Amino acid sequence: MKSFVNHPKDVVKDAIDGILINHKLAKLDRFPEIKVVVRKDWDKSKVAIISGGGSGHEPSHAGFVGEGMLTAAVCGEIFASPSVDAVLSAIIAVTGQAGCLLIIKNYTGDRLNFGLAAEQARAMGYKIETVIVGDDIALENEVNKRGISGTVFVHKIAGYYAAQGKSLEEVTEIANTTIKNTASVGLALNECQLFDGQKEIRLNENEAELGLGIHGEPGAEVIKLDSPDKLMSLITSKIEQHFNNLSDKYSVLINNLGTVTPIEMNILANSFTKTSLAKQTTYIVGPGLFMTALNMNGFSISAIKLNPEIEKGLLAEVEPSAWIKAQKLTSISIVETPKLKELIPFKASENEHVKDIILSAANTFIAIEKEINELDAKVGDGDAGATFALVSKSIINLIDQLPLNNITETLESIGRIFSREAGGSSGVLMSILFIGAGNYYEEDNNIGKALLSGLNKVKEYGGAKVGDRTMIDALEPAFNLLAEGKSIAEAAKAARTGTESTKEIKKTLFGRSSYIPEELLKGIQDPGAEAMARVFEQLTK
Amino acid sequence: MKSFVNHPKDVVKDAIDGILINHKLAKLDRFPEIKVVVRKDWDKSKVAIISGGGSGHEPSHAGFVGEGMLTAAVCGEIFASPSVDAVLSAIIAVTGQAGCLLIIKNYTGDRLNFGLAAEQARAMGYKIETVIVGDDIALENEVNKRGISGTVFVHKIAGYYAAQGKSLEEVTEIANTTIKNTASVGLALNECQLFDGQKEIRLNENEAELGLGIHGEPGAEVIKLDSPDKLMSLITSKIEQHFNNLSDKYSVLINNLGTVTPIEMNILANSFTKTSLAKQTTYIVGPGLFMTALNMNGFSISAIKLNPEIEKGLLAEVEPSAWIKAQKLTSISIVETPKLKELIPFKASENEHVKDIILSAANTFIAIEKEINELDAKVGDGDAGATFALVSKSIINLIDQLPLNNITETLESIGRIFSREAGGSSGVLMSILFIGAGNYYEEDNNIGKALLSGLNKVKEYGGAKVGDRTMIDALEPAFNLLAEGKSIAEAAKAARTGTESTKEIKKTLFGRSSYIPEELLKGIQDPGAEAMARVFEQLTK
Repeated sequence: MKSFVNHPKDVVKDAIDGILINHKLAKLDRFPEIKVVVRKDWDKSKVAIISGGGSGHEPSHAGFVGEGMLTAAVCGEIFASPSVDAVLSAIIAVTGQAGCLLIIKNYTGDRLNFGLAAEQARAMGYKIETVIVGDDIALENEVNKRGISGTVFVHKIAGYYAAQGKSLEEVTEIANTTIKNTASVGLALNECQLFDGQKEIRLNENEAELGLGIHGEPGAEVIKLDSPDKLMSLITSKIEQHFNNLSDKYSVLINNLGTVTPIEMNILANSFTKTSLAKQTTYIVGPGLFMTALNMNGFSISAIKLNPEIEKGLLAEVEPSAWIKAQKLTSISIVETPKLKELIPFKASENEHVKDIILSAANTFIAIEKEINELDAKVGDGDAGATFALVSKSIINLIDQLPLNNITETLESIGRIFSREAGGSSGVLMSILFIGAGNYYEEDNNIGKALLSGLNKVKEYGGAKVGDRTMIDALEPAFNLLAEGKSIAEAAKAARTGTESTKEIKKTLFGRSSYIPEELLKGIQDPGAEAMARVFEQLTK
Repeated sequence: MKSFVNHPKDVVKDAIDGILINHKLAKLDRFPEIKVVVRKDWDKSKVAIISGGGSGHEPSHAGFVGEGMLTAAVCGEIFASPSVDAVLSAIIAVTGQAGCLLIIKNYTGDRLNFGLAAEQARAMGYKIETVIVGDDIALENEVNKRGISGTVFVHKIAGYYAAQGKSLEEVTEIANTTIKNTASVGLALNECQLFDGQKEIRLNENEAELGLGIHGEPGAEVIKLDSPDKLMSLITSKIEQHFNNLSDKYSVLINNLGTVTPIEMNILANSFTKTSLAKQTTYIVGPGLFMTALNMNGFSISAIKLNPEIEKGLLAEVEPSAWIKAQKLTSISIVETPKLKELIPFKASENEHVKDIILSAANTFIAIEKEINELDAKVGDGDAGATFALVSKSIINLIDQLPLNNITETLESIGRIFSREAGGSSGVLMSILFIGAGNYYEEDNNIGKALLSGLNKVKEYGGAKVGDRTMIDALEPAFNLLAEGKSIAEAAKAARTGTESTKEIKKTLFGRSSYIPEELLKGIQDPGAEAMARVFEQLTK
């Protein structure tokens, strides 16, 4: 596994220094021997809220230090509890008369090190309470319930009431209620890997793991890989079973365990809305990264049963940006799509001259289809002739519906047919050309200048210009002459000269030939330019 | 690759429905044929800001729709530009008299589809401006500069001035200044993979790619894998070269390209602070997910040269939670660590009786070390005897420094020696026992009750109780009798009975034997309990 690590032994140290770009945070000066992140703006008059544990769960816990959540976080090495000294230092650094609540995840190491620190701090005269979070309901045994992403609810709600100036007893009570009301289940497609390169692979390509911890320990069961809709429904049904009350309301946190892509997290959020638990869910927190397990490809769901006290604490604004504001879960809102114009939104009219020109051009494109395709096969993908022929056939079919006696509308209509019938870039480019020309013609009845104006839009949006081996090499000199009032014959000659010049253009950043080796281009003209020159030549006849 | 995808063809559709759990957003009703996310609370009196492009870059762009940033996002399929119709529908849905700015990333497909939509909307009478973002400075050629994570700066700053009621011309101008002032470079350790299972692997285990796009297209160069400090300095030096002015001030966005773990992103943030660009950096945005490339294992840095207008737009609060508030970059703050007590923070005193008991117990632990280790080798990890012997030797060495004539202080001192000298859980547990006992003894001079109180703390933090195959099976019955005023001999008998009972305990969730197969435990007593029983038996002599 490749990773952004200077040295495995410095992972946690470097990462904590990275967190400290947040100028409202500080570290204790025995860093990195002990790794404690504290609020710089803390005044000790309120109950301090401390959490922590092994690292590898970022943004937990240091990412949640800040106004409205934690006062300090005590960080151990990856997946290893911090020492008693570290926890005790954190307590002494932030605890005043109001006392301190330690929020401990239910792992032996954390319970012991935070517990001993609590005992030592009490022996020193500090008011300390501890709560143990075991929100993971995947393991049936009560004593082994692990602390996972639901712990963040405890940080949030205890943090809120501490900030409100509640007493240590009150904050501890609400923290315990929060814990009692919270249930989480995790699921992963792939285990997490440690930075030291050790790679454990338990799961095969058709398996997922349900009810897993956040340290790579095996999950409660290996299940068959299934769709996110099915997996989500499996998880939420476990949570519903746990709470077993259809009338309660919940808030649900959707936690990325590490490396699920944001688009997949959105898919999972959508899967959640389809579950029956969603019907009982008032607020959603996330999806996002709250408590990760290094690079685990998985997620966890934490649900908290709401009461007015919990709801208030949950919704309050906080300083740490790692917390994502809870939002009310409602059904999806749909706004009426504005009606777009039909293909030819104009009244048909007749004009034999215009009709002749259009048919002549269209028939030329159809006649040269094979020839242009063959040319394109040498320097592009071989479909240039087909694209023009396809649109030409459409135009011929629609000729009696065109507003031929209104040049502006005819130009726009041809543009619209191009964008509807021709796939890919060339269709859009021709469409931009004709619609741009139509817009210009409305203001100034000069077809040459109108076409030139459309071509300039093509250059603006497409990026190519003369010399880039595209049809612009034929069109620009021809349109220039037309704009100056010169004849079609003169324009045709310029188009031909421009087309011939593309035979010598080898280096190109745009269009069909930009992926073709330079040596293959020599002596072959651009097929788009060739097609344009041929149409001009036909029009002179 | 395993992923949370219901069906590859539904990825974008499902993910957008997931985004719509944000009740301030809506989709247009031609969804999913066209995929447009709009603000529900939009009143058309201000300039609309629309962006979009292919999906796979979440939270870009729909995640940035909301007050202060985008008015609408137009989403294509994965890495594919949305259609002209989709862009045009978005424009019509949100554009009023004030007009609309389209923020387009510099890719051919986006330029063309957004461009044609702009032309069509203009033909319908709408005021439309477009800006093209090409912030990627890795490719030398100006025309091919891609739009990557720096685009988010344009959303933020144009979004701010649109919300302030500036005119379309003013918003377009500041957007263009933002673009001119922004430069980005990306780097990846692994390419991204598409959900259809196609897996491209260009990079070997010792390579990284510098100057990459956000679609898996090859980077500007393949470089040797190096530490994050080195890689970051390589990137920032390219950005410094680009700006080439040592007196300007910048804001820097640190973007996760997909699946870099949060702890690594923190390491990269720390690496950034060590660069010379950091000295010119006033604000940091992130690290976080802003514009991703599916599951790419990489990051990008975007720097924007500040002026007062840009700074103001950048710092303003916004609704979308995907935006991470810019924070002032200062040097790391360090707070003095509170001084912890020395190992034995008490005055030495003499008490022959207490000394005898302690030495007798300590010498017993030393004498039975090998025997207990052998027992532990069968049911644990074979070091139980060594741990007790090690601490015992320390206590013997320190016996003259102990406050032997003060039982409270002596108990706390022994607890402190345990936590200093014994590694792992057993050291902490014994420490909790003795410090807890000391705290109790201070209030009530009853050594039996004091030890029982300490043991209760052990049960509380450690989780085990009688019957769980730990030393509690020996200690609890013995301490109970001492607390009732019974003799050491009676306590010793109870300890022995408790120890014998562990021979029949096969299932255990705690301690040394919880990982040992049940059938191996039968008939073997717990080594911790055995050691405790032996000490009691010695003390009766």
